[in-house]
Amino acid sequence: MASEWEYVELATKIFSFKRGDVVVGAGEDDCAVVKVNNRSIVLTADSLHEKTDFPPQIREWEKGHMSIAVNLSDIAAMGAEPAFFLYTVTLTKNYTLKKFREFCMGIARLAEKYGVCVVGGDTDSGDEFAVSGFAVGFSNKPLLRKNAKAGEKVFITGLTGKAQLSLEQLFSGLSRDSIAFPEKLYTPEPKIEEGIRISEFVSACTDVSDSLAISLHLIARASKVRIELKSVDLSLLEEYVDKEKAKELFLYSGGDYELVYTCEDDDGIEIGKVVEGRGVYIDGRTVEFRGYTH
Amino acid sequence: MASEWEYVELATKIFSFKRGDVVVGAGEDDCAVVKVNNRSIVLTADSLHEKTDFPPQIREWEKGHMSIAVNLSDIAAMGAEPAFFLYTVTLTKNYTLKKFREFCMGIARLAEKYGVCVVGGDTDSGDEFAVSGFAVGFSNKPLLRKNAKAGEKVFITGLTGKAQLSLEQLFSGLSRDSIAFPEKLYTPEPKIEEGIRISEFVSACTDVSDSLAISLHLIARASKVRIELKSVDLSLLEEYVDKEKAKELFLYSGGDYELVYTCEDDDGIEIGKVVEGRGVYIDGRTVEFRGYTH
Repeated sequence: MASEWEYVELATKIFSFKRGDVVVGAGEDDCAVVKVNNRSIVLTADSLHEKTDFPPQIREWEKGHMSIAVNLSDIAAMGAEPAFFLYTVTLTKNYTLKKFREFCMGIARLAEKYGVCVVGGDTDSGDEFAVSGFAVGFSNKPLLRKNAKAGEKVFITGLTGKAQLSLEQLFSGLSRDSIAFPEKLYTPEPKIEEGIRISEFVSACTDVSDSLAISLHLIARASKVRIELKSVDLSLLEEYVDKEKAKELFLYSGGDYELVYTCEDDDGIEIGKVVEGRGVYIDGRTVEFRGYTH
Repeated sequence: MASEWEYVELATKIFSFKRGDVVVGAGEDDCAVVKVNNRSIVLTADSLHEKTDFPPQIREWEKGHMSIAVNLSDIAAMGAEPAFFLYTVTLTKNYTLKKFREFCMGIARLAEKYGVCVVGGDTDSGDEFAVSGFAVGFSNKPLLRKNAKAGEKVFITGLTGKAQLSLEQLFSGLSRDSIAFPEKLYTPEPKIEEGIRISEFVSACTDVSDSLAISLHLIARASKVRIELKSVDLSLLEEYVDKEKAKELFLYSGGDYELVYTCEDDDGIEIGKVVEGRGVYIDGRTVEFRGYTH
């Protein structure tokens, strides 16, 4: 099987047909952007599967939470306000109405928290539990990946690496109550308010789903700039692992759903700067394009 | 496992949170309807799975076609014009880039035919090939199920039963080139133009995905009316099966994606009339609420 990126690239080529009201199309950014009566609407779709995407010991309502959270994170990355959500869910033979109720409650709670109305759903049966989400939002000024400028600083809304650290602790035998950051692993919070706040002054933004490294590369490529990372305080991770592993988790692990953005200045967590050139570097060495793969 | 209807009913109860801009919410009609700057937008999501939804001997591009067709059929049932499409697809380990190209081409061709821009997609890996679609359309006057009035006639855009007849022929050993209506089975056509045409004068409308019987019940319930079917020319089906079986296929089989609608008069295929009362009847007997189940 080819890599996910190859499939995305191929699809982007095939779906080249554009309408006049499409501002940002398939594969170009975290969401598509279309104009409706002069208003910018953002659209996104994301799916999760039992075996590849849900951590062990996850509860049914947390599956619901995650399925809407990953979509709202894409909306947050555009600096947009989420409005509507639809889902399709694949139910396995032993999936009871009781489980389904808990799953839906997980969606409903996060939706209501952000004023999102769940306007549609579809259930079908299949071999593996899976859920696809579709989110629609409104934006005054969509935050793209492509407008980072030399001279700006790079920020993140929270330290990355916590989700993967917690997952590895689970795999090493810890219970879900004993891992370092259970809420990052089971109920990641989409950074909606932060996205809207920074949309006023930020040049480029994306969320961190696969890894910080990949998100930075996407901004650097789209903006045609070079990003140089500086040394960042990883003590929150270093309480659990050594310095080398903490750096690996920080750069190359996924699932934290923080935002990474560039601007002149802000009081977020500063992790580097934008300069002229290409690529992503730390201590003079290339940051690899790799992260979580499904 | 409970029936699909029980899951839908439960979800509709849980997702009761509404926004002021939501005109039609989850589970109420073929699509949700929301208002954006005074324009009516319709939203729908539908999924298909390899084992339960795709007929034997289907080609990859036909899977792509079907995945967008079933969503556009919901848009057509609202009398709306489709505009944007997003999908998520579950790829199995042996799914090559070549297959994926054909699959995407199937989506792209039908999308372009109706001026639809594919603005997003997501690939993930899993145990069974499956695809979820999400379609967005524009409507001047959304066609709901609930406005059928006593005194009106009931029409369909085409004879139902062809898809299931063809499927049963396949199961009986015929090749895909020898079955009666291969295009109804493998490449159903969403009735976009018809939906827009009839939106000018129609009171109630839905599409036929599960069965004509279920679609008629949904209209009768939502409109609080009784529908009485008349005798319909089924000779196209009776070329292949006996009269009793033809009637069973016409009423209770799915997959044709025709529209069924009520209005004063039209030159579509007239199948009955709307009267005061409740329920759906043929020759004085109740039409059952049943059809295709996944």
